[in-house]
Amino acid sequence: MCTDQQNTQPLMALNPVGVVRSPFKAPMLMAKDSGLSLELRTEKVKEHHRQVKTGISELVIDKQWEPLLDGVEGFSHILVLYWPHLIDPSRRNLKKVHPMGRKDLPEQGIFATCSPARPNPVLVTAVVLKERKGNVLTVQGLEAVDGSPIIDIKPYSQNYMIIEALKSPDWMEQIRSELDED
Amino acid sequence: MCTDQQNTQPLMALNPVGVVRSPFKAPMLMAKDSGLSLELRTEKVKEHHRQVKTGISELVIDKQWEPLLDGVEGFSHILVLYWPHLIDPSRRNLKKVHPMGRKDLPEQGIFATCSPARPNPVLVTAVVLKERKGNVLTVQGLEAVDGSPIIDIKPYSQNYMIIEALKSPDWMEQIRSELDED
Repeated sequence: MCTDQQNTQPLMALNPVGVVRSPFKAPMLMAKDSGLSLELRTEKVKEHHRQVKTGISELVIDKQWEPLLDGVEGFSHILVLYWPHLIDPSRRNLKKVHPMGRKDLPEQGIFATCSPARPNPVLVTAVVLKERKGNVLTVQGLEAVDGSPIIDIKPYSQNYMIIEALKSPDWMEQIRSELDED
Repeated sequence: MCTDQQNTQPLMALNPVGVVRSPFKAPMLMAKDSGLSLELRTEKVKEHHRQVKTGISELVIDKQWEPLLDGVEGFSHILVLYWPHLIDPSRRNLKKVHPMGRKDLPEQGIFATCSPARPNPVLVTAVVLKERKGNVLTVQGLEAVDGSPIIDIKPYSQNYMIIEALKSPDWMEQIRSELDED
């Protein structure tokens, strides 16, 4: 079903259209952090969250796809789809996680979280588009680590994506309120 | 670079985690519509837009991935990532399009539009989550046609995705105002 008869590639094969250049060289929480106390872990996440919000990254699009960017500079925000290439492929089989690795929060199914470990690890983030120069977009607010393959760029527009009165479960509201306090 | 040495599959290969069951059996605009007048075409798009906003679809997740849905019912809205399987693969090489096929609007690079014809056709839509029963999610507002392979389900939360003061180019504002008038 998911095999293309003509070339034996899976039908849903992605090819990178560019690469992320970022000040973030490694994922926020590494295996080595699993021994951290909840307090230290939360402090580390908060500091990382602050850095991501203000951090500047470059999306370097392959020259052959540069014409596809024409007009993107009319948008204040874009969606970036990318592949978390440092995640071990075996983690695509995970079923549940503690959100952000926090054992104090109840386990959730992967589809109820933004965990990068998921069956099809296509990550989606809305970022501020600061500038376009040729095949390079400068953006703010992207958590992707340096070297992440870019899958797609889309406009982030209220046409389709803004929905009011969003409701999230308590565990996510708790994380959000902790991240936003000073 | 995008080949996995161990199994010769592309590194970024997606496998469907489920399938969309929808009242929409075909894409909004077909090749046969290219001869329609602008007026008739716009009327067709407006009617389709109304149907999508209120339309109910089912996301039937494969049984093996059902546990990944646990906790998703705590969200009022989710992001659905899916593959537009009826699009001809040759259209992944398109560089520019008239938005919604409208010759009265200036051509835009694919990355500045939501065209399903794109190098990596992973489509992303925010929808209302009405109900979860086992491995089936009932959602409102999904444009995906019946049979579309589902790539991923994510929470749609203001944690990361809501950004205020979005600015879009004139052509998109024009489409939006036309779709919203009665």
